[in-house]
Amino acid sequence: MSEYKTIGILGGMGPMATYDLGIKIVDNTKADKDQEHVPVIADCNTRIADRTAAILKGGDDPRPEMIKSAKRLEAAGADFIIMPCNTAHYFYDDVCGAVSIPVLHMPRETAARLKERGIKKAAVLATDGTCQSGIYEKALEGEGIEAVYPSEEMQKVVMSLIYDYVKAGNMDFSALDINGVVDDVKSKGAEIMILGCTELPIAFDVIGETALPTIDPTAELARAAVKAAGAPLK
Amino acid sequence: MSEYKTIGILGGMGPMATYDLGIKIVDNTKADKDQEHVPVIADCNTRIADRTAAILKGGDDPRPEMIKSAKRLEAAGADFIIMPCNTAHYFYDDVCGAVSIPVLHMPRETAARLKERGIKKAAVLATDGTCQSGIYEKALEGEGIEAVYPSEEMQKVVMSLIYDYVKAGNMDFSALDINGVVDDVKSKGAEIMILGCTELPIAFDVIGETALPTIDPTAELARAAVKAAGAPLK
Repeated sequence: MSEYKTIGILGGMGPMATYDLGIKIVDNTKADKDQEHVPVIADCNTRIADRTAAILKGGDDPRPEMIKSAKRLEAAGADFIIMPCNTAHYFYDDVCGAVSIPVLHMPRETAARLKERGIKKAAVLATDGTCQSGIYEKALEGEGIEAVYPSEEMQKVVMSLIYDYVKAGNMDFSALDINGVVDDVKSKGAEIMILGCTELPIAFDVIGETALPTIDPTAELARAAVKAAGAPLK
Repeated sequence: MSEYKTIGILGGMGPMATYDLGIKIVDNTKADKDQEHVPVIADCNTRIADRTAAILKGGDDPRPEMIKSAKRLEAAGADFIIMPCNTAHYFYDDVCGAVSIPVLHMPRETAARLKERGIKKAAVLATDGTCQSGIYEKALEGEGIEAVYPSEEMQKVVMSLIYDYVKAGNMDFSALDINGVVDDVKSKGAEIMILGCTELPIAFDVIGETALPTIDPTAELARAAVKAAGAPLK
């Protein structure tokens, strides 16, 4: 029987990223049978309002439903919480304040891993909302790492990649100047690109190797969660 | 805001099948944004004991943890429950008896869909545990459909495909006589093959087209759940 802690996934932001995180937890756990995997309770709460719209355009407040989910996970027996949405970390303190169990912080986990790897400058590829809220910048600063952003023109390519392509199910990126984005942040001294939106690892799986390596925060969060649950990493 | 019912997934049997069902729910829902998807609470309870070992070899009883999960889902606000494990349906009545919310039945949903398609004879490809417990046979009988099984020799091929290949991560099936299995059940009059173990749709995605069509019970369960939640099917 599993003696591991129970992971609570505060999900639904979006639903696919929720299950993708679950799969990454399974893939990163050293286990030979079902019973050696970490127990997880995933609350795929699609009633949570859009985070980017709330931050940038005064849209509906996502916090009431995020807090409901956090409390639900705590009541159901989760020992700690993780959130598979980069932008949701803008509301991290509100979630923490609502429960008495810990909440792991995806950008901080990513920054800690980058520090371990000796990175000094990292490019943030993310939505306008995540970039402008400074979520990654603050997490990186905490580890002494400098955040680098694409130019205004190249940020439009990133946004198009996320919204017009991956979210729309169009995976032929040949019309997009992806190399332009990579060259831009590389010329500014970035040693690595943070794929700071859950759509981006999906895109970069298709794009393949570029002139800079990448780091997937969802995978880092999955590994941090397996470790926090007390299970062996694969 | 989503007005749909909340789906409860009694999962962890195994963990990958749990997230696979979540993805099939997303894929089968007509939705343009996160908030148009169905809310789901997934309890990936890896403390549940092995179902096949319990049925065939007197192994640990999986029911106490299955019942804990069912109650947890009900308490967390699930409006109904689904179980992404064929063999777990052997304990269906125990789960139903523990909660006051409905539990959908994967083999019965599959049988109902086969009846709609006018099928009279369906082959059951599954573990020895699922076959010997008669879970699919009873569900099919309820719809006037006859169950057909592989010969003893060909059932060994199915078991090897599940345990020695897919569960072990080996996806090169060239040494296995898959066509022998298909020809065997076809010669007995089967018009379709039920992929009655969550490993089998993964294998048949790789195998590709065979002399008989297939039906994936997990996908049927996902569609039944989306419908039961009141959301539009894609």
